[in-house]
Amino acid sequence: MYPDSGDDSAVSDSAIPARDSHTEAARQERLEWLRTRQGTPLAPLQPMRLHADDLSNNVENLIGAVEVPVGLAGPLVFDGTHASGSLYAPLATTEGALVASASRGARALSQAGGVRTHAVSQRMTRAPVFQLGSLGQAAVFTDWVGDHLEELRGQAARVSRHATLVSVRAVMTGRTVHVVFAYETGDAAGQNMTSACTWHACQWILDRFPAETSADVECFRVEGNLSGDKKVTYHSFLNGRGTRVVAEAELSDHVLRRVLNTGRASLLDTHRIQRGGGLHGGMVGNDVCIANVIGGMFTALGQDIASVHESSLGHLELEPVDEGVRATMVLPALIVGTVGGGTRLPAQHALLEMLGCAGPGGQSRLAEIIAGFALALDLSTMSAVSADEFVAAHERLGRNRPPAVPAVPADT
Amino acid sequence: MYPDSGDDSAVSDSAIPARDSHTEAARQERLEWLRTRQGTPLAPLQPMRLHADDLSNNVENLIGAVEVPVGLAGPLVFDGTHASGSLYAPLATTEGALVASASRGARALSQAGGVRTHAVSQRMTRAPVFQLGSLGQAAVFTDWVGDHLEELRGQAARVSRHATLVSVRAVMTGRTVHVVFAYETGDAAGQNMTSACTWHACQWILDRFPAETSADVECFRVEGNLSGDKKVTYHSFLNGRGTRVVAEAELSDHVLRRVLNTGRASLLDTHRIQRGGGLHGGMVGNDVCIANVIGGMFTALGQDIASVHESSLGHLELEPVDEGVRATMVLPALIVGTVGGGTRLPAQHALLEMLGCAGPGGQSRLAEIIAGFALALDLSTMSAVSADEFVAAHERLGRNRPPAVPAVPADT
Amino acid sequence: MYPDSGDDSAVSDSAIPARDSHTEAARQERLEWLRTRQGTPLAPLQPMRLHADDLSNNVENLIGAVEVPVGLAGPLVFDGTHASGSLYAPLATTEGALVASASRGARALSQAGGVRTHAVSQRMTRAPVFQLGSLGQAAVFTDWVGDHLEELRGQAARVSRHATLVSVRAVMTGRTVHVVFAYETGDAAGQNMTSACTWHACQWILDRFPAETSADVECFRVEGNLSGDKKVTYHSFLNGRGTRVVAEAELSDHVLRRVLNTGRASLLDTHRIQRGGGLHGGMVGNDVCIANVIGGMFTALGQDIASVHESSLGHLELEPVDEGVRATMVLPALIVGTVGGGTRLPAQHALLEMLGCAGPGGQSRLAEIIAGFALALDLSTMSAVSADEFVAAHERLGRNRPPAVPAVPADT
Amino acid sequence: MYPDSGDDSAVSDSAIPARDSHTEAARQERLEWLRTRQGTPLAPLQPMRLHADDLSNNVENLIGAVEVPVGLAGPLVFDGTHASGSLYAPLATTEGALVASASRGARALSQAGGVRTHAVSQRMTRAPVFQLGSLGQAAVFTDWVGDHLEELRGQAARVSRHATLVSVRAVMTGRTVHVVFAYETGDAAGQNMTSACTWHACQWILDRFPAETSADVECFRVEGNLSGDKKVTYHSFLNGRGTRVVAEAELSDHVLRRVLNTGRASLLDTHRIQRGGGLHGGMVGNDVCIANVIGGMFTALGQDIASVHESSLGHLELEPVDEGVRATMVLPALIVGTVGGGTRLPAQHALLEMLGCAGPGGQSRLAEIIAGFALALDLSTMSAVSADEFVAAHERLGRNRPPAVPAVPADT
Repeated sequence: MYPDSGDDSAVSDSAIPARDSHTEAARQERLEWLRTRQGTPLAPLQPMRLHADDLSNNVENLIGAVEVPVGLAGPLVFDGTHASGSLYAPLATTEGALVASASRGARALSQAGGVRTHAVSQRMTRAPVFQLGSLGQAAVFTDWVGDHLEELRGQAARVSRHATLVSVRAVMTGRTVHVVFAYETGDAAGQNMTSACTWHACQWILDRFPAETSADVECFRVEGNLSGDKKVTYHSFLNGRGTRVVAEAELSDHVLRRVLNTGRASLLDTHRIQRGGGLHGGMVGNDVCIANVIGGMFTALGQDIASVHESSLGHLELEPVDEGVRATMVLPALIVGTVGGGTRLPAQHALLEMLGCAGPGGQSRLAEIIAGFALALDLSTMSAVSADEFVAAHERLGRNRPPAVPAVPADT
Repeated sequence: MYPDSGDDSAVSDSAIPARDSHTEAARQERLEWLRTRQGTPLAPLQPMRLHADDLSNNVENLIGAVEVPVGLAGPLVFDGTHASGSLYAPLATTEGALVASASRGARALSQAGGVRTHAVSQRMTRAPVFQLGSLGQAAVFTDWVGDHLEELRGQAARVSRHATLVSVRAVMTGRTVHVVFAYETGDAAGQNMTSACTWHACQWILDRFPAETSADVECFRVEGNLSGDKKVTYHSFLNGRGTRVVAEAELSDHVLRRVLNTGRASLLDTHRIQRGGGLHGGMVGNDVCIANVIGGMFTALGQDIASVHESSLGHLELEPVDEGVRATMVLPALIVGTVGGGTRLPAQHALLEMLGCAGPGGQSRLAEIIAGFALALDLSTMSAVSADEFVAAHERLGRNRPPAVPAVPADT
Repeated sequence: MYPDSGDDSAVSDSAIPARDSHTEAARQERLEWLRTRQGTPLAPLQPMRLHADDLSNNVENLIGAVEVPVGLAGPLVFDGTHASGSLYAPLATTEGALVASASRGARALSQAGGVRTHAVSQRMTRAPVFQLGSLGQAAVFTDWVGDHLEELRGQAARVSRHATLVSVRAVMTGRTVHVVFAYETGDAAGQNMTSACTWHACQWILDRFPAETSADVECFRVEGNLSGDKKVTYHSFLNGRGTRVVAEAELSDHVLRRVLNTGRASLLDTHRIQRGGGLHGGMVGNDVCIANVIGGMFTALGQDIASVHESSLGHLELEPVDEGVRATMVLPALIVGTVGGGTRLPAQHALLEMLGCAGPGGQSRLAEIIAGFALALDLSTMSAVSADEFVAAHERLGRNRPPAVPAVPADT
Repeated sequence: MYPDSGDDSAVSDSAIPARDSHTEAARQERLEWLRTRQGTPLAPLQPMRLHADDLSNNVENLIGAVEVPVGLAGPLVFDGTHASGSLYAPLATTEGALVASASRGARALSQAGGVRTHAVSQRMTRAPVFQLGSLGQAAVFTDWVGDHLEELRGQAARVSRHATLVSVRAVMTGRTVHVVFAYETGDAAGQNMTSACTWHACQWILDRFPAETSADVECFRVEGNLSGDKKVTYHSFLNGRGTRVVAEAELSDHVLRRVLNTGRASLLDTHRIQRGGGLHGGMVGNDVCIANVIGGMFTALGQDIASVHESSLGHLELEPVDEGVRATMVLPALIVGTVGGGTRLPAQHALLEMLGCAGPGGQSRLAEIIAGFALALDLSTMSAVSADEFVAAHERLGRNRPPAVPAVPADT
């Protein structure tokens, strides 16, 4: 049943060469080997502006780099807690119409007086799990953990001075007790530092809890999948993971008509209908297409692209006010950082600097800028749907054939 | 309440220059303008291997490109419906340990005889919405749509020969009726072509339904947010959007110990515990970190990075068999294509060619390769958690300080 | 580890007497035994109007009956596909204010011209599961099942003439293939008949599939938990289980003010806010308190009370129209029947007769009546919240102390 | 558009008589009126053991009572924090096989040494909402509320001495801030008392916050639908509403075979498969059919039947141990109380007394008993599916025709 090729030798000729080496020579060796082995030219991978030696913390088995084109969206006028003034968003994307649509939304928001933003809080979570020897012990453990926040905070502080343990919550699911550690991590996204902090704090638990209570921890895992790392979960949506940020603006019917080619009533109708569609489809959150902004800005700004999955949750609310609408975007779980990871790469770092997000406080500012442009894009796209221009816009700007002008207005 | 800057002139000095121009000169003009305006060097954005003129369908307001480093994971032996032999995955990432971990999982799977894969089906959805004049008319409309699949298929076929309308489902939510159009789109992801097909088919509905029934369509929108485009929804998870693909393998306890440093019992415990954590956290699906593979391969291979959000859903199942485990990965909603969008960019296209995914049938093959590597990574990461090596591995390969060797085994 | 009391004798003195007997004498014997054993009078259980012998299909180990008081809500004017005229809802409940609030909502709807209702469709599902010998065989099986709808329909028809197999959908999750059987079951809720139909159809599959394909079904279970029976699932919400029914009405600002003590603007505000709260809370559907109507009518009318769990999903939509609001309620998964189960009990049957739901077509009519009153209650409760009367109403009608009159209006 | 019948006079002949009267005479008057008006005998509603005058806090417009038959399940041996010894569960139901199946599961658990139970915590939530004058004010409000827990606790304490405010959490969603008040409510389910406490505490907020901060609360609602009252939400599942309770037991393969007619391997297979089915179906939690026990015990014991909806969430975990399995049931959100509401009705109260749940501490004890029987039923039902006896059991005990003995074993 288990065909076992004995050891690695059986696949040795297929092993990627120069393992553990991060030099340019190693990269070239791998590329040449791959070219030969696969019989494929790979010429576009040959050149690279990045320096292989600088990437040892970023990637293994480096063979080159892909370029993702960056378009500039904006300007968008901000009046936020951490972001203000007229700002531009670099969006790395290959999807036509995205930058144009985000810019159109930004124009509407700016003409309406700008977008107000506020980064509410930041949390990075890691959730180790302990299986106890009995249900009774698990109950004792659950209480014990809750009583030792200060000690755990001290243990975490020994590992990192950037991560502050904010809360610890034990969730008893039988003998198995998940413990949600939540940290503030300053300008870092913080997944790695909080993993280390949590692991070390758990060593302390594994040492002290049995000694104090004569109870057994039968099984420990540093992550029991309750943290939601790299996944979409209601836990992250409700209780927060990453940065929670809100953006809002009021737009008059006049601005909606002039810039977005729709009107208050039509836009509110679209919102109501799309909200209903999302609800019936079992959507987590309810937005139009904020993943476009989050994917584009994450890529341009050296964020972890995998985190686009869990970060692209949002709630777009439209509220009728006076002669216009108030639009609000909530992003409850935006995993962003302005230090570490890909933020050190030259182009990415230059773009962070251009946004004013490279220094202290950059993380909250970045979150607010993303929220503002997410609101801009969603308003523009929803307006295009309202005005029945959505398909035509994509046909004109995207990869399809020449547009067919819609002959039938949206509301007939 | 609505501060209105009158017209665009008020922000004209802030307008991005050379709008609608896709030349290199236009790019340089924008870059220079941005540099001056923001007082930031942006030097790393200056060079670019891509040709600005080739990107007119991919991005607006181009200012340059970011390079994302690509590491090579593998080899992974495939025995799939569309993918077979020893294959390598290019992962564009800035997160240390990812390529190494995926490679380790691939080694385990390969030594266990390889991974079997099967692309089950492919669907692209678009869900327009119609609001009728009364509840009775909505009921009539709901039935009418269901009775006209053939005609709608014909209308869609007039717009694209690549998209085949497979089914139409009307969901009555009062006077408002959402209609889910589901297409097969060959090697294209298909969002744009199905939008166009659907819009044109809806024009036919808007023309014919009132004529045949004397009923009113009071309001039409080409998308009512039930399609799940760019969102995580249970509709996509259950009913499919993009490609549904499965991957499975059996691994003996021997292979688990030798390659993954864990054992059958410990791994099954971890799986049970993480499954429970995911359930209690309200996770959509249940996996470990497949977003890493999906983000890395999407970026390297010219897929729409924004689609990482909706595509990174999965179900990792572990089943005890004989002296080992059977591991199965289901990806229910993988938005991939091998034509269009960013797949034309030189490096991305070269990597698609290297995978053998650039020609006909490429889409199913690509989906299977992604599923195989997603399984590999999840097994490796879960094993690291099982063996209590997760934190140490990240400290060694990632961006943190030198590792602290875990002094306490996982199961004490 | 497994304390095993050997056989039943160890607990024989604790065994409930008269097992398998459904006579009144058996009931009295059990009651006396319980009274003695537990040292508790149980006097109120002694009398019972039901006849023990009639309950052999409804309950085992009968000891008596609890009375649940029934209040009458209404009248509510219906203008529905199956329900019309001025109708009253019997609500079995012990919670003060429920009947009064439902009646108030009914008065508002009736003064507004009544509620329009439409039962859209009815589906009962059962989802057996098959584990195949290999991934390839599972793929074959998935297709094979899809190709044999007619034969499966024939097999199901041999078991019940009331259940019609409408569709069969195979969901491949690796070697394991879940198959969703969906039936129309006329006036029965249909859980039991469809279980039998499905089991027998599966015997046919287990016989024919291996013979035709030389493939192995390694494991069969008549239910793999995908049917959603007795659970809240997005599958039921999206794809339907039980009856899907909608109700709608328009209410003028005048009626809202006179009957519900709120106004259009305030009610729309409350709806928007509550919709947002539900979204942020991860609510399945979005309503105010329809479980009250569903629990009350299910209990009064002999429905399966356990099905209150899965049936109480709904979507309340409010839409501004002219000088009022249009309110729509969608109940996507209402498990109701008018034959079988508790519908034969005398009082329950009398109340079904009173509603005109005891004959053919009763099931759709019952679903519409429930939807109408669900809309009525939700409007009334939301209005009470709008007018800040919610707490006062419960203090006056419920179980608490005398009301404190709210001194502060809602919108200050 | 709004047909308005002017005032109540237009429907006066259809108005239910004797409004606001809770006498037996009033009940008879209504019944006679209904009988005449609807032309339906309603004879079974005439007699009633309950006294109309005692029900003034439980129901309005009383017309009678329905009897729901009660079967006795058990014995089940408990070894819990609040429940111990051999106990019986009264299940009010009309669905054949339920009591028998729960009893079978109880027998298996008892022979395995009994079930261990632990009520972890109890929380009742109410979530008012405040809309502020600006985003900045909302941010101030969010912090302000967090800083005034003690004062709010004092305000709540003025209203009820049974409810203790445990925590207050402000969730900023733009200008709109939802505030989750969580209380411990002793032996009461506590919905009404916490509504009153919360409303009064909010009056204090509405008075003090503007005075202290010069900010405006533009809109207040006592409930913004984040509390999850009467709804299924992930908020309740994750963060708790009602009582969180766990139950566990180990069962040897021997007991599984002798009592449940299945074996360790087959049962674990079924669990794995059903867990997967639940996951793919978008199930909230993962269990087999605990709604049956919760519906049956809630009805028998005077709980709010409408709360069956939100309470029937659970997680059934099966874990292989030695030669058997450990089974664990978590019920995260069980809305139970042993005072107030329907617990005062004679038969319901007698059954609570029989369970020893009528006095202080009754609430936790009741939760543990429910959890134990929920585990018993789920094990029995899952075993019947494992042994392919599920359909036969329902055919034998339920409402259908004579059983067809399954000719094909489950695992062939």
